[in-house]
Amino acid sequence: MTGLRSHPRFVSLEGGEGAGKTTVLHALRDALREDGAEVVSTREPGGTPLAEMIRDLLLDPGHEPPAAETELLLMFAARAQHVRETILPALERGAWVICDRFTDSSYAYQGGGRGLDAGLIAELERRVVGLQPGLTLLLDVDIAQGRERTRGRDLARGANGPDRIERERDEFFERVRATYRARADGEPARFRVIDASQPAQAVAAEAVARLREWRDAAA
Amino acid sequence: MTGLRSHPRFVSLEGGEGAGKTTVLHALRDALREDGAEVVSTREPGGTPLAEMIRDLLLDPGHEPPAAETELLLMFAARAQHVRETILPALERGAWVICDRFTDSSYAYQGGGRGLDAGLIAELERRVVGLQPGLTLLLDVDIAQGRERTRGRDLARGANGPDRIERERDEFFERVRATYRARADGEPARFRVIDASQPAQAVAAEAVARLREWRDAAA
Repeated sequence: MTGLRSHPRFVSLEGGEGAGKTTVLHALRDALREDGAEVVSTREPGGTPLAEMIRDLLLDPGHEPPAAETELLLMFAARAQHVRETILPALERGAWVICDRFTDSSYAYQGGGRGLDAGLIAELERRVVGLQPGLTLLLDVDIAQGRERTRGRDLARGANGPDRIERERDEFFERVRATYRARADGEPARFRVIDASQPAQAVAAEAVARLREWRDAAA
Repeated sequence: MTGLRSHPRFVSLEGGEGAGKTTVLHALRDALREDGAEVVSTREPGGTPLAEMIRDLLLDPGHEPPAAETELLLMFAARAQHVRETILPALERGAWVICDRFTDSSYAYQGGGRGLDAGLIAELERRVVGLQPGLTLLLDVDIAQGRERTRGRDLARGANGPDRIERERDEFFERVRATYRARADGEPARFRVIDASQPAQAVAAEAVARLREWRDAAA
């Protein structure tokens, strides 16, 4: 695997904290199923038993914090596993795959957020992932509004507070957001940017409309 | 970090299964301490709390086996952490660091053994590790003799059998050994190859002699 191949039934959802990815994920899955498709909905980091164990290492604030490079490599280790064990087998049998976060998250969080070289990330993307979503929906919302929403969610969760990455400062999330937007500007054929300051149901409806548009144009 | 810097007080021990690395590690540590040095002895994968948790994921045969690329990235994730949290701080305060396995193991096991591209490994070495041992002692022993020794050790361990990588077949270990030897041939200034078919105490004595020779020549 050394190139980067795009797959038309592979859709990723990207965005910052509190952008409403989970609601959108469910809406996309339900819409494609209504249309008769098999859909695998999955998430990163995670999506296989081993990759979920890597996720726990990444998000648990209980041990010493990983260096930025360690965090990046753990993300890509989980992704390498996820692509081979879950995503490619599903695509090969004809299913759609909707993934909550994919490689764009590494560019945004470990690249933009932590300042790691985008060249290293691109190298890992080409050499150990090799797969790109055909469509990426970027749920864009300003940092303060996203924070407000995760606060509501964290209260509802009770004892479980924010994870290690969610505890970063606003400047970090501003860099994440700027990186996402720059990537969307640079790849307009793959990205659709959705204004996620709208109410959740409106965001979900727009995401479903964009996905169907894209699928029907490709058919 | 994008280059590869060698450090004169950083020593790695390499070799296949049953080569006697643990006995040698203790002998080297004791010898340097007798000579008045501070010594940190450590191991890979591992060497920090987080890196030891990554080690458990790597060696536990209990979940789905990692893809070769996943294994490689987990090794380098642990190594990136180990270098930053343990090895560099020790070197910077003037200690010696003796490490049971380092990047040569990735070339031998994930490169030679699993067939991953050495170019990818070199890229990770330069970009996320950046550090090379000044001296690498390669304990070379033939596969059958190494197996015989680990069998004895596994019996002594009782319930704990061989780990996931130790369960590989002989052809795998032949490729590992050949890769180690080719690397030693290619970097004679850094490597010393020790015949590990000798009794353990003779191997340890030779390793101590090589280390002192090397240190005194560098001084």
